[in-house]
Amino acid sequence: AVALGVKFLDAQRKELPQGGAALADLVTLDMSGLDPRLGTVKIEVACDVQNLLCGPEGASAVYGPQKGANLEDISIMDSALNNFGEVLSRVANTNLLELVGGGAAGGLGAGLVGFLGAELRPGTQMILDITGADEKIKQADLVITGEGRTDFQTAYGKVPVGVAALAQKYSVPVLCISGDVEGSPDFLADLGVATCFSVAEGPTTLEEAFLKADEQLERAAWRILTVWKLAEECQLKKLRHS
Amino acid sequence: AVALGVKFLDAQRKELPQGGAALADLVTLDMSGLDPRLGTVKIEVACDVQNLLCGPEGASAVYGPQKGANLEDISIMDSALNNFGEVLSRVANTNLLELVGGGAAGGLGAGLVGFLGAELRPGTQMILDITGADEKIKQADLVITGEGRTDFQTAYGKVPVGVAALAQKYSVPVLCISGDVEGSPDFLADLGVATCFSVAEGPTTLEEAFLKADEQLERAAWRILTVWKLAEECQLKKLRHS
Repeated sequence: AVALGVKFLDAQRKELPQGGAALADLVTLDMSGLDPRLGTVKIEVACDVQNLLCGPEGASAVYGPQKGANLEDISIMDSALNNFGEVLSRVANTNLLELVGGGAAGGLGAGLVGFLGAELRPGTQMILDITGADEKIKQADLVITGEGRTDFQTAYGKVPVGVAALAQKYSVPVLCISGDVEGSPDFLADLGVATCFSVAEGPTTLEEAFLKADEQLERAAWRILTVWKLAEECQLKKLRHS
Repeated sequence: AVALGVKFLDAQRKELPQGGAALADLVTLDMSGLDPRLGTVKIEVACDVQNLLCGPEGASAVYGPQKGANLEDISIMDSALNNFGEVLSRVANTNLLELVGGGAAGGLGAGLVGFLGAELRPGTQMILDITGADEKIKQADLVITGEGRTDFQTAYGKVPVGVAALAQKYSVPVLCISGDVEGSPDFLADLGVATCFSVAEGPTTLEEAFLKADEQLERAAWRILTVWKLAEECQLKKLRHS
């Protein structure tokens, strides 16, 4: 924000030094230095993170420890970010402390919305829009989606579930091919993913699996489509005989 | 054979001592001590081994090294077995040296045929007969077979290929589920196995794979049948709309 022309001011309207902890002294923001052209640009942010800016699932508590912060550091950072969030919310006239995704990338989510009027959108949804998936799925017999590892977390807004939600609109069945599948083969059926296959072709290490992922993915799709074709032929044969 | 009443005699019509090497001195066999009831029993041997009794792919050359025999031992054993094979062939009036499977279980194949008039049959074929697979496959839409590891050796008379040969008679498609699949998914298509799935659900060790084999096999079948059902429904829908 500073690089874009925003001034972070304390009670004496003096600019704050750089760094998160200094935000505790933030009293107001001077946005007059922002390039006016930014107001004419619509910014969409692909953001799958759902954490809030502050609190127990805020940017400091969740991402701080990964970066070496201890409990005291986190408490200082969280309270500084909370002050920043309050000030920016007031200036931007929107409640950034309750913004889902506000805590993404250490608070960048809240910053983009507050400073630039950006919109946070789930990445899956954006990609589906950009690729025209809606039109393509509408005409398909079958949709195959995939991800690295399919487990119970997949239900929380990951790609296969986003694809399945779209496919359900047109009653097109969805299968998933993943590197690793944990859970029963149909635990996502309620969300529209009929079943999940792994690309694995036998016992293997994670390292080997990475090396062979391309060819194994191709073979996994081939297998599934072989079954699909056999079943279609079987159905045709039965109808002809009845 | 000795336990069943056969006498192994040398040139002086003296009984030989136990052990393979002594067979070098075998001149004739006295079968008169065999229980006459053995003549009224038809013995079928499930035998997938195709090795001959003697020679470079004989019992001694192939199985000797596994049991600690060196090259000299093997040469002695092979020549003793060859003498035994010649004598028993003469007495039983059948050429046991050319019997496919004669070298199974260290020569037990040849012995069962020569002493007891047994018939060596591929194990797969026997099991298919005993289980009435023919009748069942005839009425099926799909056959799923399997084995521990599917690779290029599978083509040489292993279970999936035996099952596929039977299913091809009735034009029923065959899929294979194995612990480990090596090769492209359709390398057995010419032999009637449309494609092969592994039960694996991600990177795993062989030990873990053994522990989870049961449940993973069940899930693999479930996945395949899910695809099958979706394809059948899709075909029905298309026909209804056309």
